[in-house]
Amino acid sequence: MSNNKKVNISNEARAELHDTLSLTGAEISINTLPAGGCVPFVHYHKNNEEIYGIISGSGKVIIDSEDIQLVTGDWIKVSPAQKRQFFASDNESMTFICIQVKENSLETFTMSDAKVVQ
Amino acid sequence: MSNNKKVNISNEARAELHDTLSLTGAEISINTLPAGGCVPFVHYHKNNEEIYGIISGSGKVIIDSEDIQLVTGDWIKVSPAQKRQFFASDNESMTFICIQVKENSLETFTMSDAKVVQ
Repeated sequence: MSNNKKVNISNEARAELHDTLSLTGAEISINTLPAGGCVPFVHYHKNNEEIYGIISGSGKVIIDSEDIQLVTGDWIKVSPAQKRQFFASDNESMTFICIQVKENSLETFTMSDAKVVQ
Repeated sequence: MSNNKKVNISNEARAELHDTLSLTGAEISINTLPAGGCVPFVHYHKNNEEIYGIISGSGKVIIDSEDIQLVTGDWIKVSPAQKRQFFASDNESMTFICIQVKENSLETFTMSDAKVVQ
């Protein structure tokens, strides 16, 4: 039995990892919108910034009334107070990762946080 | 000019988003190891947990001397003190996302942090 739980996400419309993997510093979701589909509401956050990455397909996000086109490989940050809504293209689905973290919570990282063993 | 910077990551061996997107709660990197390749060192962290997601290809991670096989769609959390090293399969490359966040930094999320506008 591994000490590190692993989960495989393949065809779910939405999978949330926080509880599944016992995350303590982020909520991560993997989401697929069908062609022509959208997240059915506009939302913003109180404390958390969100980073979105497009894993496959294409679509757009409307952030504070601005349309931003999205294709596979795009990454974008959305600040807490910004109002956002995601849409898949009319002709293909869009799969994206959403990473939710507390704004200003990262202190050290990479070279200032990692220790190389060998 | 958009208020939200967007970046496209496609064929880079490694791309880091913290500075590019002015992230404040995470460092996120997108990494591709060639077939037979590996991260050339073992490392751990002082403060940050890392969440890894396999975007394409396959390989394995060794965490504290335990081999864990990885395929596309797998997600796994690694706690700060755990020693880790990632390897691509011998016969195909592996592209993975690494999300670095401060352990225990997330307070509210999703239903307790988001506000629906419409």
